[in-house]
Amino acid sequence: MRLLHTADWHIGRRLHGFDLELEQRNAFAQIEQIAKDEQVDGIVIAGDLYDRTLPSEKSVGLLNQMLKQLNLTDQIPIYAISGNHDSATRLSIGSEWFLDTNFYIHTRVAQAFTPIEFGDSQLFLLPYFEPFEVRQYFGDDSIQHVDEAFAAILKQIKTRFAPDKKHILISHFFAAGSQTTDSETKLTVGGLAAVPLKLLADFDYVALGHLHGKDALRDPKVQYSGSPVKFSLSEANQEKGVLIVDTDDIEHRRFVKLSPLKDVKQLRGDFETLVNPNYYQTINRGDYIGINLTNRNQIPNLMSQLRKIYPNIIELKRANGYDDILHYDGESATNIRQSDPMDLMQRFYEQVTKQRLTADQLKWAQDTLHSVSDGGKL
Amino acid sequence: MRLLHTADWHIGRRLHGFDLELEQRNAFAQIEQIAKDEQVDGIVIAGDLYDRTLPSEKSVGLLNQMLKQLNLTDQIPIYAISGNHDSATRLSIGSEWFLDTNFYIHTRVAQAFTPIEFGDSQLFLLPYFEPFEVRQYFGDDSIQHVDEAFAAILKQIKTRFAPDKKHILISHFFAAGSQTTDSETKLTVGGLAAVPLKLLADFDYVALGHLHGKDALRDPKVQYSGSPVKFSLSEANQEKGVLIVDTDDIEHRRFVKLSPLKDVKQLRGDFETLVNPNYYQTINRGDYIGINLTNRNQIPNLMSQLRKIYPNIIELKRANGYDDILHYDGESATNIRQSDPMDLMQRFYEQVTKQRLTADQLKWAQDTLHSVSDGGKL
Repeated sequence: MRLLHTADWHIGRRLHGFDLELEQRNAFAQIEQIAKDEQVDGIVIAGDLYDRTLPSEKSVGLLNQMLKQLNLTDQIPIYAISGNHDSATRLSIGSEWFLDTNFYIHTRVAQAFTPIEFGDSQLFLLPYFEPFEVRQYFGDDSIQHVDEAFAAILKQIKTRFAPDKKHILISHFFAAGSQTTDSETKLTVGGLAAVPLKLLADFDYVALGHLHGKDALRDPKVQYSGSPVKFSLSEANQEKGVLIVDTDDIEHRRFVKLSPLKDVKQLRGDFETLVNPNYYQTINRGDYIGINLTNRNQIPNLMSQLRKIYPNIIELKRANGYDDILHYDGESATNIRQSDPMDLMQRFYEQVTKQRLTADQLKWAQDTLHSVSDGGKL
Repeated sequence: MRLLHTADWHIGRRLHGFDLELEQRNAFAQIEQIAKDEQVDGIVIAGDLYDRTLPSEKSVGLLNQMLKQLNLTDQIPIYAISGNHDSATRLSIGSEWFLDTNFYIHTRVAQAFTPIEFGDSQLFLLPYFEPFEVRQYFGDDSIQHVDEAFAAILKQIKTRFAPDKKHILISHFFAAGSQTTDSETKLTVGGLAAVPLKLLADFDYVALGHLHGKDALRDPKVQYSGSPVKFSLSEANQEKGVLIVDTDDIEHRRFVKLSPLKDVKQLRGDFETLVNPNYYQTINRGDYIGINLTNRNQIPNLMSQLRKIYPNIIELKRANGYDDILHYDGESATNIRQSDPMDLMQRFYEQVTKQRLTADQLKWAQDTLHSVSDGGKL
C-alpha cells in the first residue's frame, strides 16, 4: 500500500503581505498529479490545513475545492487531522458524511483510538491536542504536560494494535530532537512542547506535521513531510515536496519535489552589487526576495530603487546596522537636511512601525510630496 | 410523500443578550419527534440555518449535531437552502459528500435548476440570492431587480418540469402581500425586495423561509413555516411550529405547534399593578418579558425592583414617555438630589446608550456605590 504524506498546507497564509493562493493552487496541482502518477492508495494530510482557526470564506472555498478534487473526483482516500492552526470544530463539519468516500478527518483525541484499516497497515489519526483535553478524556489529573498526555494516548492506542499489521501514526506535534530547536533544553516550538521520540518506538511509521522542513528530523521511522510551499524567509533553503511511503518498505520512502511559481530567496550584498545588471541578471528577480544589505550608509530612495529591480521584496535588513542619522551633531543634521524627503519618510516609518510602506502608501506619499513641491512651498 | 417544512432556525441568535441555545435545542428535539411521529419522507429547511454569516464555533457544532441527528441517525432526507443570514460558502462545506445520505444543501443559484426527485414530486431548491449573481449567471445585464431575477430563474426552472410530477419550490425571500409590510408600497423587508406571488403560480407548493410568522402570508400554495423559536418581542403573539405537507393534499397541510421552555411575552401596565402579587402570580414570570410601563413618574430602582419579580426582562419601555427630570427648574433639581443614585445612573445609562445595564454591570455599580457610601464619602 502506498501513501502520499503531506502536511501544513496553511490555506489562507500570506507571505509578508503577498497572497499565496496561486502558489498554493500550483503546489496542489502538482500534489494531485504526483498522487495519480504514483497511484497512491491514500493521501495523508498531517494537520494545519488552514492557516487560522477562523479561515476566510475564500480559504474555506479553496480547501473544500481541493479536498473534493482529490476525494470525489480522483476518488483517493484522505487521512487528515487538525493541527494547531486549525479549529477542530470548524474543520469537523460534515466529517461523518465524508466516511462514505473514505475521507477521514479526525479533530478530537477520542478519534485516535479507532484504527483505520489500510491494507497491511493500521492508521491511527491523532489530531493536535492540548494536554487538558487528554486530562479530561482519561479523567486523570496527573496528566499535566504534553509528554504525559502522549504517553497515555499511545498506551491506549497500542491496545488497539493488530499484531499482523503495520502501525502508522499520523500526528501533528513537535518531536524532541528536531532541527529547529536551538538546543536540547528548548522545549517548545510554535507553542508545542516536545514529544520524546522514544514514545514512538512501537510504530512502523509516524507521519508528522507541524515543522515546515522535511529534514527537521532524521529518523528511519519518524518524519515531517514539510509544507508544500515556502512560508517564510527562514524556509528559503528548504526543498519543498511530498513523501511517497510504501508500507512494505517504509525506510526507503521517497521525497518528490514541488516547483514553486515564485521561489523565496535571501540575497546579501551591498547596494552597488544588487543594482548592478551583471549581478541581478543572474537572479530570478520575480521571486519573493529578502535583502540583507551590507551597506551602513544612508541611500536615498533605497526601497523604491530596489523594488524597480526586485518587485517582490519581502524583507529589507541591514546586515551591519546603519549609520545613525538621528544623533544630534552638525554633520548628521546636515545629512538629514540633504536627504531625499521620501527616503527620510520611509526610514522613519520603518523605524517606528518595523514595516515597510506598501506600494499604495508609497505612491500616495510620492504624489503628496510631488504636489507640495510643485506648489513651490518646499 | 410527506414533508416537514421548517425554516429560520437562526442558530447562534441571542434575545436581548439572553442565550437561546437551550430554546433552540428544545425546539429541535420537538421537531425531530414530530418528524418521527409523522413518518415524514423529508425535512425542508428553507434558509437562515445560522443567525450570521460568520457563526461561532459553538453554533457550528450545534447545527452540525442537529443535522447529523436528523440525517445520519434518523436517516431522514434533508432539503435545505442558504438564507440571507447564512454564508453560502461556509454552509456549502461538505455538501457534495452529503448527497450519499440524501442531505441536499443548495447555496448557489445554479443548483436550483436541477430538480430533486421526491416520489410524486420534483423539489427545486433555490437559495437566497442577490440580483447580481443572477445577472452573472444568465449573462443578462437587463436583470437589475429581484423580480426580474426571479422571473428569469423561474422561467429556466419550468423548463425542467416533468409533466407527470408535482412541482415544489423551496426558497427564501419576501413575498409581496406578506403581512409584515406596512403598506403595498413598501418593497423590502429585512433587506429583501418583494417577489410578486403571480410568478409562483405554476408551482404546487412554495415552501418559504425568511419571515418568522407562519401567517405572514395567506395563500393556498405558498407559505412561510415561520421560525421554531420566538426571536423578538414583535413575535410574542405568534404561534411557533412546523408544517406537515402531504404532496397529494397540499392545501390541507397541518401546522404542528412547538412549546417553548420560556415564552416571550409583552406586558403593559402601571408599576403598582406589575409588582402586585395578585397580578404577577397569574403570569409565567420566568418568561422573556417586555414591559411597557404606563407610569410617567420617576420610580426609584425601577429596573431592579422589576427584575426581582421578572428575572428575564428583555425590554422596558415607557408607554407614555416619562416626566423629564433633566429640565432645569428647582423642583427637578430637588428630585434629582433625592433620587436613589443607582436609579439615576441606570436612567442616565439608558438615556445615553439606549441599553440597560447588564446584571454584571449592575452588580459592579451597586458594589461600588456601596463601598463608597461605607467610606462615609457620600
